[in-house]
Amino acid sequence: MTDQGLKGFFTPDNVALIGASESSGWTAMLLEGLAASAAPPQVHFVNPRSSTVHGRAAFATVAEIPGVVDLAFVLVGPDRVLGVVRDCLDAGIRDFVVLSSGLGESSAYGTATQELAELCAMHEARLLGPNVSGFVDLARGTALFGLAWPPHLLRGSVGLAMQSGGLATHALSLCAQWGIGVSRLVTTGNEVGITVSDVLDDFADDPDTSVVVLFLESIRDPERFRQAAVRAREAGKAVVALHVGSSELGRTSALAHTGALVGDHATAIAALEGTGVACVKSLEELIAAAGLLARHPEGLPGSRLAVVAASGGACELIADSAQRLGLALPPLPDSVQGYLGTVLPAESTARNPLDVTGFVVKEPELTFQAVAGIAAHAAGDYDALVFQSVLFPAEDAVDDPAVRERFRRLGELVRSTPLPVLLQTAGTFSLSPRVAELVAGNGLFVLPGIAVGMRAIAAAAHSARLRAGARNAETPAAGVLPAGAGDVAAAMRDCGVPTPPARVVATAEEAAAAAAEIGFPVAVKLVSPDVAHKSDVGGVALGLRDAAAVRGAVAGMQAAVRRARPDARIEGYQVVAMRPAGIELLVSVTQDATWGPMLTVGSGGVLTEVLEDVVVRPLSLDPAVISQMLGQLRIARLFPGYRGAPAADLDAAVAAVQAIGRLALRLGPAARAVEVNPLWLRGKQAEALDLLVDWA
Amino acid sequence: MTDQGLKGFFTPDNVALIGASESSGWTAMLLEGLAASAAPPQVHFVNPRSSTVHGRAAFATVAEIPGVVDLAFVLVGPDRVLGVVRDCLDAGIRDFVVLSSGLGESSAYGTATQELAELCAMHEARLLGPNVSGFVDLARGTALFGLAWPPHLLRGSVGLAMQSGGLATHALSLCAQWGIGVSRLVTTGNEVGITVSDVLDDFADDPDTSVVVLFLESIRDPERFRQAAVRAREAGKAVVALHVGSSELGRTSALAHTGALVGDHATAIAALEGTGVACVKSLEELIAAAGLLARHPEGLPGSRLAVVAASGGACELIADSAQRLGLALPPLPDSVQGYLGTVLPAESTARNPLDVTGFVVKEPELTFQAVAGIAAHAAGDYDALVFQSVLFPAEDAVDDPAVRERFRRLGELVRSTPLPVLLQTAGTFSLSPRVAELVAGNGLFVLPGIAVGMRAIAAAAHSARLRAGARNAETPAAGVLPAGAGDVAAAMRDCGVPTPPARVVATAEEAAAAAAEIGFPVAVKLVSPDVAHKSDVGGVALGLRDAAAVRGAVAGMQAAVRRARPDARIEGYQVVAMRPAGIELLVSVTQDATWGPMLTVGSGGVLTEVLEDVVVRPLSLDPAVISQMLGQLRIARLFPGYRGAPAADLDAAVAAVQAIGRLALRLGPAARAVEVNPLWLRGKQAEALDLLVDWA
Repeated sequence: MTDQGLKGFFTPDNVALIGASESSGWTAMLLEGLAASAAPPQVHFVNPRSSTVHGRAAFATVAEIPGVVDLAFVLVGPDRVLGVVRDCLDAGIRDFVVLSSGLGESSAYGTATQELAELCAMHEARLLGPNVSGFVDLARGTALFGLAWPPHLLRGSVGLAMQSGGLATHALSLCAQWGIGVSRLVTTGNEVGITVSDVLDDFADDPDTSVVVLFLESIRDPERFRQAAVRAREAGKAVVALHVGSSELGRTSALAHTGALVGDHATAIAALEGTGVACVKSLEELIAAAGLLARHPEGLPGSRLAVVAASGGACELIADSAQRLGLALPPLPDSVQGYLGTVLPAESTARNPLDVTGFVVKEPELTFQAVAGIAAHAAGDYDALVFQSVLFPAEDAVDDPAVRERFRRLGELVRSTPLPVLLQTAGTFSLSPRVAELVAGNGLFVLPGIAVGMRAIAAAAHSARLRAGARNAETPAAGVLPAGAGDVAAAMRDCGVPTPPARVVATAEEAAAAAAEIGFPVAVKLVSPDVAHKSDVGGVALGLRDAAAVRGAVAGMQAAVRRARPDARIEGYQVVAMRPAGIELLVSVTQDATWGPMLTVGSGGVLTEVLEDVVVRPLSLDPAVISQMLGQLRIARLFPGYRGAPAADLDAAVAAVQAIGRLALRLGPAARAVEVNPLWLRGKQAEALDLLVDWA
Repeated sequence: MTDQGLKGFFTPDNVALIGASESSGWTAMLLEGLAASAAPPQVHFVNPRSSTVHGRAAFATVAEIPGVVDLAFVLVGPDRVLGVVRDCLDAGIRDFVVLSSGLGESSAYGTATQELAELCAMHEARLLGPNVSGFVDLARGTALFGLAWPPHLLRGSVGLAMQSGGLATHALSLCAQWGIGVSRLVTTGNEVGITVSDVLDDFADDPDTSVVVLFLESIRDPERFRQAAVRAREAGKAVVALHVGSSELGRTSALAHTGALVGDHATAIAALEGTGVACVKSLEELIAAAGLLARHPEGLPGSRLAVVAASGGACELIADSAQRLGLALPPLPDSVQGYLGTVLPAESTARNPLDVTGFVVKEPELTFQAVAGIAAHAAGDYDALVFQSVLFPAEDAVDDPAVRERFRRLGELVRSTPLPVLLQTAGTFSLSPRVAELVAGNGLFVLPGIAVGMRAIAAAAHSARLRAGARNAETPAAGVLPAGAGDVAAAMRDCGVPTPPARVVATAEEAAAAAAEIGFPVAVKLVSPDVAHKSDVGGVALGLRDAAAVRGAVAGMQAAVRRARPDARIEGYQVVAMRPAGIELLVSVTQDATWGPMLTVGSGGVLTEVLEDVVVRPLSLDPAVISQMLGQLRIARLFPGYRGAPAADLDAAVAAVQAIGRLALRLGPAARAVEVNPLWLRGKQAEALDLLVDWA
């Protein structure tokens, strides 16, 4: 990116449409979008094969256009893109949107991508694409967009940056259906020049944008992304993302355990969430969360919901959904129950969720009073109130004064309550243009159905929590003292990685003495630089309960190794304490190619892949963060000494994980993965019983 | 229900609206619905306080109405319902819809419910309600519905039976939005008379209905439901249900393990699925699955999908969603790759999912060819093809010949392929009435967005699988030989429940001899009818490794018990084999109050509640069913001898579960729960190490 960022990019006064033609669907949609723009730029057609396009004169080349051209919108075939961009640069154009696809790295024109990138860098040009649909800027009234977009899209504060041009149409359609106002949509495609990070950075400064929606396939410039996320966060803006690729098999590390448990996608999600970006799983959740966050850019302070709904069935659906999503529905405090007793008829029960069936139709006023009463009396007990009783009028009833009055009062209610009141319907809907205006005009947003709405609420709570976490996150120092493979044992000691007592000895007699000192039972392992898999040559003896057994094991081991590998040097025998049953964790630090060091904790030992019980985050040495990560594991339920099994001390576990994190930083990025499995816990003891380092 | 079922109930010629008034919102909506009916009944208003209602004459009482009245639609307050129904019965009316709410069992009029039920039974009357919105019968053109319903709802083959009247409006709205045709909607509310099972039974015979949608809060007549489900299944109809209440705390059994793991809701889902009813989790999934099943009432034969989509982003979203839902996207066979090579341009890659970006706009014909080609060449490799490239026209473009031709060709394509072609959009949508007609008129249904659409596809595959399973399900014989508490040990032996070797002996010397015979290590446990918690009085000794230890343990135990409980009778000592580490399962049979005996298998021992790894089904002794249940457990990954831990033999485990099932049947319903935890597995060994019976 150039120093000026994207300033002015989305408000060109003059645009050259290069490759526009009568027969092109893209041209037709582009012109439709321009026609719907409030402040469209002046447009010049360039087409060497036709002197008119859609009834207007076309230039044969861009050089022929008189006066200044601010931006070239390129629709030519992939074989012609490079030549066209060169011509434009020669003509002084520095801003580009390249819609053309087929220029991916795997395609026949893959080298053109590299040349395009070099040309842009050389000329300080700004290029959006290739393989984009362009952008729609509602705040300033300019659209250069090669696909359909809804004609009645409202202007608002949601900014979208999408790496998929095709899905952009659908994202805008959802915004229009649900009455969500948009500031600007930008598609970034193959990102030869402008990346999604650049667009996020631009949104951070944009006064028209309070929420940023991202559709991500991969982040090409993670450091720039991190900085942009910080700027957006500091500007009080919420960022919500849908990152695809969870089904892909990409793996950060080839190491058995962590590699099979935590793929590139899970790492990316953890890294994004580490920057305060809330991630969701579907297009509908993404857009609904943005609609909610546009009303509450700070997110929701917590997950405690009061619910007022128009039917018992809706109450149960909401409660089920809340439980699945980890949202709480605490009981109504006594004061509210007392208040509701004075408002609701006798046959109604004052509880959370509150079913106001019947009264919605018969006495809508009571419902308003119930909502206002809960919001006023229990603002400290809940983080939001979900009000599920919105009936949209038909398009032709929008002017009915009773309808207008109902929505005006709803707007007043929502504005006046100390607790955020979140409106929701039971099922999804699509607002007709005038109804959408009525709703948005009263400052209202209605969550589209319980399934998507409750997920959007969870995302809004998650957004606030992640941003608070990102603010407090410590960035650990990188590996300033990289150690070689041979130094691992020393580095472990220096970093305080706890290990079971062990001695390396030369003879059977010394082994017996070491075992007595360590305490029985012990294991004995061959020490040899020539044997990788010790157990294959009889080089491991477990469960030795007395001195005689240790002596016998060493003698037997010596004989077995001599037979199996006469060439192998025997440097000694390691005598190591054996541990009784305990809780076993997996702890690893992997170097992600995009995101850097990531910390994974999980259930370890035999249960590692059975449970798939892992939590991954950007590496932190903060005990609070590690403690929270451990607390999220299912296996953590065993820590208090569940059902007679031995307990484990959380502080000891946290200290051990910290030490493993220090070790990974000490070994530096050359250690692609440092993995302890198991980290054995029993009472106050925590010991790394096995440690692997995967060197790059 | 009466012998005639619901015959004629939904097609009354004459209806009395009792309690209809000018000011009632229900009355207004009811009249709107009647006005929209193709074949509305003749309507008489009954209102003792007003001689006209909505400009038409009203009778003061139902008795004054001349001629026959087929059905009374009751909207009066809860205090007046019973009197009104009595008057109607006196006037010869036998069919009722009671909209009035406030008659629930917990309300002030709770006893009225019981009286209503008795009145209906006595007079063979058919009563829908109370607390319903009524019904909408599009197949025959009659609507008696007290809430709003979409005016442009299409007629079709989806029948709905809903226990929530409030949500019925939203279900119909989703049908209208997505162009799904409805045969009839019936709300059943508090089910004093007609139940959801009766409505399902009626749909089983209804030639207009091929798919039944259920919204369930609780099934009051499980045996009738089961029979109705069998009839629907045998008629080739799909049934899909949303059962709420997963957040409720109702528990089948007070026994520690199973009770905490499997609530009433999970039991209900398992029981419903046992009858072939596919359960979903949201209103949107429910309706979308019904739309899909209306085109394919047999469901999908499997879960292998080919995907053709209009953007790379959509391909990735679909792949992610498929993976989460257990749907497979197998690679394209070579023959199809070869075919696509001749159709698609060079820069396109022939893979699954297939991204046809760009060509959708530029060359729609290519996309059609790709879909037709895959469907023709790979019909045996997939169970369905998801085609994600539908662009709906604007309402005013419906008459455009090009648009009509496109949809005609799409209809032709979908009808002509040997593989089901499932159309889908990226995000949800709402069809305007004329577009919905265009789509449905060409025999098309479009899945509303990836998130909901993929879930609907999973439900359709699930529906076929569940119906096949239900057809083959064996119903085990009930407990013909109930045994008392004292007979459990004998019943265990008779039923072949495997247990570790054990002997009851009288002296320390006999104990040592028994231990030698059983094999060390052993445990010794006090046998006394007076001591409930043996370990509290020193009555349990574990891990005894030789004869001396056994002798010492018995002597010590005798002394300890004498000290702690001088009054306790000592009937002997049980010497029982101790088992090394193995795989531990939970196996239980619980008697559900609604659904009868349910079998639960899960991870047992210490991991029981940590893993929450359970599968529950109606009790079956079929080895194939038990084997499939065990295979669904996460812990099953340990069976092959995972990471050096001891393996377990699946056949031995299945035989042990069968034996526990036989035991539960033998003990009969008086045993509310029979729970083995752990069922210990190691190699070919399977033994119940602990067994509890919870007697009613």
